[in-house]
Amino acid sequence: MKSLIDVLDFSVEELDSLLTTACDIIENPAKYSECCKHKKLATLFFEPSTRTRLSFEAAMLELGGSVIGFSDGSNSSASKGESVADTAKVISCYADIIAMRHPKEGAPLVAAMNATIPVINAGDGGHAHPTQTLADLLTIYREKGRLTDLTVGFCGDLKYGRTVHSLIAALSRYTGIKVVLIAPEELGLPKYVKQEFMQNMSFVETTSLEEALSDLDILYMTRVQKERFDCLETYERLKDSYILDTAKMQLAKSDMCVLHPLPRVNEIAVAIDNDPRACYFKQVANGKYMRMALILKLLSEDAPISEIPGVKQEGLVCTNPRCITSIEQEPEHRFRLEDAKKGICRCVYCEAEYKAL
Amino acid sequence: MKSLIDVLDFSVEELDSLLTTACDIIENPAKYSECCKHKKLATLFFEPSTRTRLSFEAAMLELGGSVIGFSDGSNSSASKGESVADTAKVISCYADIIAMRHPKEGAPLVAAMNATIPVINAGDGGHAHPTQTLADLLTIYREKGRLTDLTVGFCGDLKYGRTVHSLIAALSRYTGIKVVLIAPEELGLPKYVKQEFMQNMSFVETTSLEEALSDLDILYMTRVQKERFDCLETYERLKDSYILDTAKMQLAKSDMCVLHPLPRVNEIAVAIDNDPRACYFKQVANGKYMRMALILKLLSEDAPISEIPGVKQEGLVCTNPRCITSIEQEPEHRFRLEDAKKGICRCVYCEAEYKAL
Amino acid sequence: MKSLIDVLDFSVEELDSLLTTACDIIENPAKYSECCKHKKLATLFFEPSTRTRLSFEAAMLELGGSVIGFSDGSNSSASKGESVADTAKVISCYADIIAMRHPKEGAPLVAAMNATIPVINAGDGGHAHPTQTLADLLTIYREKGRLTDLTVGFCGDLKYGRTVHSLIAALSRYTGIKVVLIAPEELGLPKYVKQEFMQNMSFVETTSLEEALSDLDILYMTRVQKERFDCLETYERLKDSYILDTAKMQLAKSDMCVLHPLPRVNEIAVAIDNDPRACYFKQVANGKYMRMALILKLLSEDAPISEIPGVKQEGLVCTNPRCITSIEQEPEHRFRLEDAKKGICRCVYCEAEYKAL
Repeated sequence: MKSLIDVLDFSVEELDSLLTTACDIIENPAKYSECCKHKKLATLFFEPSTRTRLSFEAAMLELGGSVIGFSDGSNSSASKGESVADTAKVISCYADIIAMRHPKEGAPLVAAMNATIPVINAGDGGHAHPTQTLADLLTIYREKGRLTDLTVGFCGDLKYGRTVHSLIAALSRYTGIKVVLIAPEELGLPKYVKQEFMQNMSFVETTSLEEALSDLDILYMTRVQKERFDCLETYERLKDSYILDTAKMQLAKSDMCVLHPLPRVNEIAVAIDNDPRACYFKQVANGKYMRMALILKLLSEDAPISEIPGVKQEGLVCTNPRCITSIEQEPEHRFRLEDAKKGICRCVYCEAEYKAL
Repeated sequence: MKSLIDVLDFSVEELDSLLTTACDIIENPAKYSECCKHKKLATLFFEPSTRTRLSFEAAMLELGGSVIGFSDGSNSSASKGESVADTAKVISCYADIIAMRHPKEGAPLVAAMNATIPVINAGDGGHAHPTQTLADLLTIYREKGRLTDLTVGFCGDLKYGRTVHSLIAALSRYTGIKVVLIAPEELGLPKYVKQEFMQNMSFVETTSLEEALSDLDILYMTRVQKERFDCLETYERLKDSYILDTAKMQLAKSDMCVLHPLPRVNEIAVAIDNDPRACYFKQVANGKYMRMALILKLLSEDAPISEIPGVKQEGLVCTNPRCITSIEQEPEHRFRLEDAKKGICRCVYCEAEYKAL
Repeated sequence: MKSLIDVLDFSVEELDSLLTTACDIIENPAKYSECCKHKKLATLFFEPSTRTRLSFEAAMLELGGSVIGFSDGSNSSASKGESVADTAKVISCYADIIAMRHPKEGAPLVAAMNATIPVINAGDGGHAHPTQTLADLLTIYREKGRLTDLTVGFCGDLKYGRTVHSLIAALSRYTGIKVVLIAPEELGLPKYVKQEFMQNMSFVETTSLEEALSDLDILYMTRVQKERFDCLETYERLKDSYILDTAKMQLAKSDMCVLHPLPRVNEIAVAIDNDPRACYFKQVANGKYMRMALILKLLSEDAPISEIPGVKQEGLVCTNPRCITSIEQEPEHRFRLEDAKKGICRCVYCEAEYKAL
């Protein structure tokens, strides 16, 4: 049994197999309509996310399974002080697979370490959201016929946008990818993402969407999320930068694909929705199909529970206030050694960087 | 594909066909128990309404289908600023039919204009609640055997009670209906309802329930809803007027039917529940059966999406603060010309009246 | 048709039959997987309880049925002033069986008196939580092979812990039970529990968990719940008393069973989870199986609605502010005569004690 916590948990071969399954589901839905009969998905959403939750629920229902769960942590046992670890053990008695969204980074990993059923990370704070990346990959694959040799622009909030980081990480394993980073200075891609995933990737940075557009095969737009800003003024000043409208679309290739993780506010003009290059609603459907493929894969594996990742570093604790270790007492603080020479390690839950001891 | 936004969207023939289907479901439930297998209803309740939501969910389950959704807008993507139009496009990827309740008038119409699946209005602010009217019609039909030649009293809050307006509109298309309007002065039926639907209807107005009772075949009671009042004092003074009790019931015909859209607070004494003339809990069951008939009808139609209603009126915008256009930027302001001679038009979303340009 | 409001509603024979059914379900799950096809459970949770709600929902789904409901009273019609009695009548039109949690004591009894379908009490304030007791009984039965001749320790909050009172009541009907009450003075077992259920039971009281441990066959740990305390300081001082850790477990018998109704906070050290004597997660699974057996039993009975319990006592009303009669106007105040000689009677809804008139 395996869980999906980070999109890099899967090898390229495993991703390819998921893409193949998703395409087969799209072509032969009836073949899959009873695959998960008598199986139950638990959607444990400690913070609300309608789109993601309903996508998982639709996926499970289209496989013939059923769904239990909650859509808001304030109605859950967590409000009575229950740990994520205990919740995972309890839900293992009720369901066959878990999809968990949690405001704390690493919470789904803690769940996976304690559950006796597979756990899917449906978003953990600003950390990871791997099933969104699966939706992105399937959309690129279906629209372009390949995941290699593409010029991919990322526009908007590249600093806080976890879907951007995650898609860059996933694409870093394919050949011929050229990345164009389009963002205001304040919202540029963090250095650690470049260091970790873009060492062998060709990329350029720009502040101008207009100048970048004509080169792109894929344009990945993102929302400037109010909840990521400490200062409301900065948000107000920046939120309307980098709006994609019909005028800008005229600068783009006739077969460029526009992606967006949604919800959009106004960063893509509604007038573009009918442009055949607008793929963001196709992305929604693709997300459902990849979640179906993922549920099928995780429920069919007999492999034993994956090893607990990382090692203890005597005396070192994660101090990231957004990390699940900040509220949950139980999980050991564990670290992954990233660079033995420089002595850099990362918390296995939230990936915060520390000096190895 | 068609949607149900207003009860007048259906012709009398279509209503008759729904009534016939509902009666057949009641007599042969097993015949329908797998009709919607592998179909999904999305219940998008941007404001809570347990009874209506559970009625839709029970209806879909009794047809063999399944349900996804949310019961409270605060847990939905809307809280992240997503438009109703985008929500409708997204949910179209997940479900086969939508039931939407929304605090803003016209929101379900905006959804229907953007969804690729049928949309049912499950209540939009104070505007319309057509499936309640379907429940009312089936109850009258089953209890009386006809929808013609009836004296129908409406009692209580006739000003804000949208279920009253809607049932009057529906009954205006049947012959021999006599209406008795029973309300305090402050809560009388709005003029526009009379003008629009009661021109060819015989009706009288009174402030006395006692005097009106003996003539009635149907008594439609309504709740004086606190949330409709600007002034709490007025609410407190009026809320107990027009309470139906056992003494008043003695003045009524032995085969009169008491209807109420529920929830009731104290406008009908509990002692009356066991009176055979009390039909308000039968109405609840009938609502479920009509929703089953409605879901079946909408899922079986192959007709193309209905045209976008109304026309643009250059320079005219709806200024009703309760209209969906007050919060959603996308939908064009469109108007239906009501009276070309007088130059009156109405917003297609909320039906607010304007001077045509 | 019968409802389950209090665990004592069932005879010992009926409990035995439930245990037998549950064990058969565990051994032959496939035999039961379509038993409730086309049946609907309504989970009416007027206050949140994720574990209990999901246990009921998983139970119904594993029987092939489906589920409707709400997880939080603030989203229900109750917030519009609807009575529990009316809600029960309405839901009877939508579902085949109800599981109700409510903050007011006696609310599920009011529901059962008005519904036309069976009602299961899923917890009513501090009063009763009979399906937790069913889970406890099945766990003891499966671990020990019997419900007789056992030394059972109850530790922690014995004053407010309704699961403790309920399990003691259930065990009082079996022979050879010896009870050890382990609690700080402030949280001792209420006198009325002793008087009502422990007259013919051997029991001892102590403040020391360590001293009591070696005698026990069963140790029932409870959480010191913050929400039960008027004074936060008292809570802070007591909450860490009576923590079960590995050192204390060495004092216990090698085949002792540790039970806990969950959620636990820190009253059982996580290190004990892997001890084979830790049975609290098995208890979770057992709860689901007993709820399956219960749903099957209640749906299969043709017996008429049980009589309304108790009698009116002219002029006597219940004054317990936690009783459902404090907010619901409809139900008659009724009392059960407990001790005719002493003139003691109890409210049938909340069991508050009164002087009979």
